[in-house]
Amino acid sequence: MSSEKINLQDKLAKFSEHWSPRVIAQMNDYQFKLAKFQGEFTWHAHTDTDEVFLVIEGNMGIEFRDKVVELSAGEMYVVPKGVEHKPFAQQECKVMLVEPAGVVNTGDAGGELTAQNDVWV
Amino acid sequence: MSSEKINLQDKLAKFSEHWSPRVIAQMNDYQFKLAKFQGEFTWHAHTDTDEVFLVIEGNMGIEFRDKVVELSAGEMYVVPKGVEHKPFAQQECKVMLVEPAGVVNTGDAGGELTAQNDVWV
Repeated sequence: MSSEKINLQDKLAKFSEHWSPRVIAQMNDYQFKLAKFQGEFTWHAHTDTDEVFLVIEGNMGIEFRDKVVELSAGEMYVVPKGVEHKPFAQQECKVMLVEPAGVVNTGDAGGELTAQNDVWV
Repeated sequence: MSSEKINLQDKLAKFSEHWSPRVIAQMNDYQFKLAKFQGEFTWHAHTDTDEVFLVIEGNMGIEFRDKVVELSAGEMYVVPKGVEHKPFAQQECKVMLVEPAGVVNTGDAGGELTAQNDVWV
């Protein structure tokens, strides 16, 4: 349980890998993660949970099978559970993710972009 | 379930009351709320849940029985469940709260600062 304040920019400065979320806080059984997106992620869904994206800096998009959502700093989106999506960012984008502890970044898809889970920064 | 993107500044422009959280998104059984703090809130605790504060704009503090935590834009804090705290802000501060749906702002304390729950903006 964190009892220290968490500065997002300080945490973002501690890693550079893309598509590799780092946990910065836990609230009950939910985790807050920071990630840097660049390029295209893999199509996937999280069958058991919604997932929140909040853009801290930059621009990103989320491709769905029927639409594309573009997000800029200060914008957030809730991807409903079970819905296939593919995040992307033409330039590096810094993002906060909120989801239950234990959620794997590639969801049901797996593959080479699957990041180690529960890595704190 | 939200399927639209949520712009924090757009949502903040839609209300002006202090200490009156507005729900902007729900993820599973958790809600994301925006609030404007100014002055001193009441001492209270949430006996069943942690609570996240993320400062969007301005400066605020959280007084605990044994310390004071000062937070600026881009900083967050997890108040552990059951821990008495009193938020305050000398000037208006815009904050995101994350907590389970149904959490009342004054927790166990009640009183005149108790806001209506589950009000969306």
